[in-house]
Amino acid sequence: MRLLVVNPNTTPSMTRTIGAAARAVAAPGTEIVAVEPSMGPASIEGVYDGALAVPGLLQTIAAQPADGIVIACFDDTGLDAARSAAAVPVVGIGEAAYHVASLVSDRFTVITTLSRSVPVIERNLAVTGLRSRCARVRASDIPVLALEEPGSDARRRISDMVARALQEDGADGIVLGCAGMADFAAELSRAHGVPVIDGVAAAVKLIESLLALGLSTSKAGIWARPLAKPYQGSLAAFSPRS
Amino acid sequence: MRLLVVNPNTTPSMTRTIGAAARAVAAPGTEIVAVEPSMGPASIEGVYDGALAVPGLLQTIAAQPADGIVIACFDDTGLDAARSAAAVPVVGIGEAAYHVASLVSDRFTVITTLSRSVPVIERNLAVTGLRSRCARVRASDIPVLALEEPGSDARRRISDMVARALQEDGADGIVLGCAGMADFAAELSRAHGVPVIDGVAAAVKLIESLLALGLSTSKAGIWARPLAKPYQGSLAAFSPRS
Amino acid sequence: MRLLVVNPNTTPSMTRTIGAAARAVAAPGTEIVAVEPSMGPASIEGVYDGALAVPGLLQTIAAQPADGIVIACFDDTGLDAARSAAAVPVVGIGEAAYHVASLVSDRFTVITTLSRSVPVIERNLAVTGLRSRCARVRASDIPVLALEEPGSDARRRISDMVARALQEDGADGIVLGCAGMADFAAELSRAHGVPVIDGVAAAVKLIESLLALGLSTSKAGIWARPLAKPYQGSLAAFSPRS
Amino acid sequence: MRLLVVNPNTTPSMTRTIGAAARAVAAPGTEIVAVEPSMGPASIEGVYDGALAVPGLLQTIAAQPADGIVIACFDDTGLDAARSAAAVPVVGIGEAAYHVASLVSDRFTVITTLSRSVPVIERNLAVTGLRSRCARVRASDIPVLALEEPGSDARRRISDMVARALQEDGADGIVLGCAGMADFAAELSRAHGVPVIDGVAAAVKLIESLLALGLSTSKAGIWARPLAKPYQGSLAAFSPRS
Amino acid sequence: MRLLVVNPNTTPSMTRTIGAAARAVAAPGTEIVAVEPSMGPASIEGVYDGALAVPGLLQTIAAQPADGIVIACFDDTGLDAARSAAAVPVVGIGEAAYHVASLVSDRFTVITTLSRSVPVIERNLAVTGLRSRCARVRASDIPVLALEEPGSDARRRISDMVARALQEDGADGIVLGCAGMADFAAELSRAHGVPVIDGVAAAVKLIESLLALGLSTSKAGIWARPLAKPYQGSLAAFSPRS
Amino acid sequence: MRLLVVNPNTTPSMTRTIGAAARAVAAPGTEIVAVEPSMGPASIEGVYDGALAVPGLLQTIAAQPADGIVIACFDDTGLDAARSAAAVPVVGIGEAAYHVASLVSDRFTVITTLSRSVPVIERNLAVTGLRSRCARVRASDIPVLALEEPGSDARRRISDMVARALQEDGADGIVLGCAGMADFAAELSRAHGVPVIDGVAAAVKLIESLLALGLSTSKAGIWARPLAKPYQGSLAAFSPRS
Repeated sequence: MRLLVVNPNTTPSMTRTIGAAARAVAAPGTEIVAVEPSMGPASIEGVYDGALAVPGLLQTIAAQPADGIVIACFDDTGLDAARSAAAVPVVGIGEAAYHVASLVSDRFTVITTLSRSVPVIERNLAVTGLRSRCARVRASDIPVLALEEPGSDARRRISDMVARALQEDGADGIVLGCAGMADFAAELSRAHGVPVIDGVAAAVKLIESLLALGLSTSKAGIWARPLAKPYQGSLAAFSPRS
Repeated sequence: MRLLVVNPNTTPSMTRTIGAAARAVAAPGTEIVAVEPSMGPASIEGVYDGALAVPGLLQTIAAQPADGIVIACFDDTGLDAARSAAAVPVVGIGEAAYHVASLVSDRFTVITTLSRSVPVIERNLAVTGLRSRCARVRASDIPVLALEEPGSDARRRISDMVARALQEDGADGIVLGCAGMADFAAELSRAHGVPVIDGVAAAVKLIESLLALGLSTSKAGIWARPLAKPYQGSLAAFSPRS
Repeated sequence: MRLLVVNPNTTPSMTRTIGAAARAVAAPGTEIVAVEPSMGPASIEGVYDGALAVPGLLQTIAAQPADGIVIACFDDTGLDAARSAAAVPVVGIGEAAYHVASLVSDRFTVITTLSRSVPVIERNLAVTGLRSRCARVRASDIPVLALEEPGSDARRRISDMVARALQEDGADGIVLGCAGMADFAAELSRAHGVPVIDGVAAAVKLIESLLALGLSTSKAGIWARPLAKPYQGSLAAFSPRS
Repeated sequence: MRLLVVNPNTTPSMTRTIGAAARAVAAPGTEIVAVEPSMGPASIEGVYDGALAVPGLLQTIAAQPADGIVIACFDDTGLDAARSAAAVPVVGIGEAAYHVASLVSDRFTVITTLSRSVPVIERNLAVTGLRSRCARVRASDIPVLALEEPGSDARRRISDMVARALQEDGADGIVLGCAGMADFAAELSRAHGVPVIDGVAAAVKLIESLLALGLSTSKAGIWARPLAKPYQGSLAAFSPRS
Repeated sequence: MRLLVVNPNTTPSMTRTIGAAARAVAAPGTEIVAVEPSMGPASIEGVYDGALAVPGLLQTIAAQPADGIVIACFDDTGLDAARSAAAVPVVGIGEAAYHVASLVSDRFTVITTLSRSVPVIERNLAVTGLRSRCARVRASDIPVLALEEPGSDARRRISDMVARALQEDGADGIVLGCAGMADFAAELSRAHGVPVIDGVAAAVKLIESLLALGLSTSKAGIWARPLAKPYQGSLAAFSPRS
Repeated sequence: MRLLVVNPNTTPSMTRTIGAAARAVAAPGTEIVAVEPSMGPASIEGVYDGALAVPGLLQTIAAQPADGIVIACFDDTGLDAARSAAAVPVVGIGEAAYHVASLVSDRFTVITTLSRSVPVIERNLAVTGLRSRCARVRASDIPVLALEEPGSDARRRISDMVARALQEDGADGIVLGCAGMADFAAELSRAHGVPVIDGVAAAVKLIESLLALGLSTSKAGIWARPLAKPYQGSLAAFSPRS
């Protein structure tokens, strides 16, 4: 089973981190192919970057044979377009985290990085349907890179935010809304005694589940196959064929 | 990995059917232990049966060592109490079906058997959060046993109901809300060209996923461990210990 | 008119308190029969206790002739099963408090005891439909027994919580989510100048109202009569007859 | 206990009908004073009539000593203003019907007369909070007077509409949204085997309940006492005094 | 194009302020006719004043030829009745502010004066449909007149409230819920760097838009023309003619 | 005032139609510049086309000086990204139609062309907040070109759908969810006696209103300015500058 894990930004170091997180939980028979597009933004911080990450994401998906696809951006960038284009199932790491969290937590708080991502995540929660399960979306406003720096107090600050979420939001679980936080999910869970969910790992298990169940994206509704038509200019290669 | 699949009614033939459906999708390392309680109703048809199935369900769970638990009634009978009592993760086949359906279908219709189950399922959808993803809950009012009878037109009638769901409800996926329908999910999916989800199979993959992710039920909220206290009369054995 | 007020836990002292609260508001022609089950938990603190209180509650109801039934636990334990089983109207003290509060308060805060009860009450509010009328559900985390102790500061702490609810939640009314608080509803109301609603009293008046109106539980939907079928083991006596 | 039942239109024959319905369910100690205003519309059919019925309603309330007030128009005309003005509790027959219906019916259909009243009732349901409990609001478009005419088929047509509500809407209870239908509620209930709720009767029992509980309208929120200020012109007499 | 801007209270100085705000944004061809009723409350503070302002408002509308009507009270007093009565389009300044705010702000906070207006505004937001776009409704509890006083700290206090709304509510826009604040909208917008919306100006542009589009109030639903019928007493002049 | 009306597909004939509709309602001082991108899909039919229309849309916006921008696709394609990128206000024709409809219709039905657009529109309504004002989204499944063909019965079929919307959906207004239908809005309105709203015209008036009010997109939330960063490959020119 070949699983395409697409980092929708163009930064290879992030792809490597995501790939490692995916491989850490993949089943024995699952081959993880972690890739990033060759065009688009170096990181996705807000709706402009998000929209311009989609062509690269779709190009990457079209170029790679796969049994299933994970979109490894917590904003679930391009999820609908990818579902429409692909013949195989597609899962976003944001929605994966919300679904998995809902099985172990009655009310979870999402901790993301940038404030501007909060309304994006709230909309995604509403589309997914699980907004009522989310106590609050909090932004840490800690730069992703600070999480890696030796001597940084970033981890302590994230841990403080988890404590506040449990106390102030009435949350009983935490969703980490940033790939850079993934590797201390286990540590946070031990420290605070509640489930802490990382989206990449959740998405790998959900896509494996869909494949084991023989299920793929419905083409009878919003994710119907693109209709054949010409595309102009530098996007001509994206033109859907009948 | 030992997975307890509890049929919360006392009819062993249903346990066998459920166990077979679970084994059909279980991963190589998963041992499926399908059991039913020794006390309680012979079938669960409505809220009275549902409430009285819970003690047997909890007794069964307490008696069996397991790494994870599936509650195999589409009404998700006793799910909260089981999550509170168990130290391992618990998934209901109803919620499992809704979560999995949401990954491949934008709007799904649930087809259940009895009319009186419709409001129960609608409430469960609301608690899960996925009510907005459900186009409609339909009752077939076909007796479960008729599904098995040679010469019965039950299968054709279910298929007709799927067709109506796609046409009238705007659904692009189907959730089968009855274990007895599980074995023709694949046939219905082929005939109608949309994903058709069976809850038992979905729940097995989700509980395997939780275990692979090292996640279990939060004890910091509604599913907190029962507080130690005396229980009277014939339920004394259920008394929680500190 | 004989009104059965069932305390669904097995502690007779609580039954006496509840019975007194009921009698204090009952109409002249209403006979209050306050009872507790002979099986089940000594108190209901969370979903596990709640589920295991239901058989005792149903047994008690079946054993007692009555014109109407009040379930005297603020979690509305077993309300659906009781409505299905009983031929007479049934009202829970939680829902009674929400309905009555809505007639005198635009937005009320519920003050309950244990934190783990908060999500239970929020779900019940959602099922009832009146969640939008509830500003917030607060937990006092004051042990019920402390409310009775001479020299305890419990009353002052509850009163402080009422003040915070009016100030911070924008509430203009208070629902007391604990039978132990019932006898100082009037005192709190005088002190804070807003309606303070006790569920036992509210339920008695609502069930009297239903009886005066000649109304009883609809059997055409979720509360349909249980279908006849065998029950196994120690629950065999609960088997519905045709 | 003196209960003021205000028909907010100026037609005395309707007041007599309403008064009779109120007296039929009033408790022994309840004196029903049914009145109509001396100014305003002869009937309330839509939002214009509704707005212009309020001054007459408020004048009537101000002129009559009472322990409690029922507003006997299914649109709950002037309910907020009356609650703000009155020192005693006030209940509208629309909201009373929704609250009482919710205690015996999981999902009710409202049957009103005019199509233009449907959105008014839907808004009132939303304000009350009970919109999720209402399956549908249907308009019979049968003139109120036809209900009384000998030889009219109006009753049969209402009964047909009840049958459709149970079948098509999934309702298990009926609320009659028109005072003119009140006297065949019992007949419809017997014929269809579901609870049929009349708002006048429901409101009388709820206001009696509030009075027995010692509860009155909160003045800490939307229903705060009017602030003292001058009123101009022909409405000068309505000027609130400090 | 003659635009009637009705101040629904009887205080001419407020009418002048409103008229000036309207003229400041009116298109060249728009004539602003700012008027107040000759009957009713001197100011609208809560639901009682609001209800008794409607007859004067309707009288004023009926007396003045106009191509479009603005109701210049932030509570949208009498909006439905005015839409039913008038043959021309009608816009309330509250709803106008919410619609316009939604085009430039993802989540806005409303700042009003009196606490008792908060629930009125929240209901109006729900009827309009835009409650999900509103982060919070805050009351400044600053007397309107203080805003005008030289040396008053009222402006600084409003500005502090804007700052708190942006920080605590996650708002990215502000709606001023009081005509008295209108003239420092621009100043607040500059100081805080977010859009600040005044309802009078918004309503003038929206009604001009409707007129340019040739659109007027639908008479097929809740705003249907009043049916002809007698009105009694001092309101007889309001009687709708066929 | 220079208003950029962007047709986000690459078909110039559609741009001409849209430009004509915009000019028909523009104020005297408004210059309408109707353009289409040089890259992307020839038409937007579903989420894949929609996502790939965004780069061309953003390129077009960046290349053209303007005081305000209208996105002339009923799906509101790229609206968030455009708001983030542009320094001037941006309005989508879908949201414009919903807001304007809400001022003249209590409950409107949207009539679009393709079935696969229905869920897209429903999500947009939810984001806008006005989903509760929409009675139903209907798909005509009439090819856009058929609307222009002499002898086609397309107009009659749209008219029939309007009639069904008024009858079956309880709608009192119609939103035309397809630019190709714009020119018979007036005819449909006359025939059915209800407001019929075209999005292009609505958007022009709303953007003119924002400009007259001096309002532009908040940069304090989801539409914050893109952060400076490198973009790779053929999208490098989109890289935001600091």
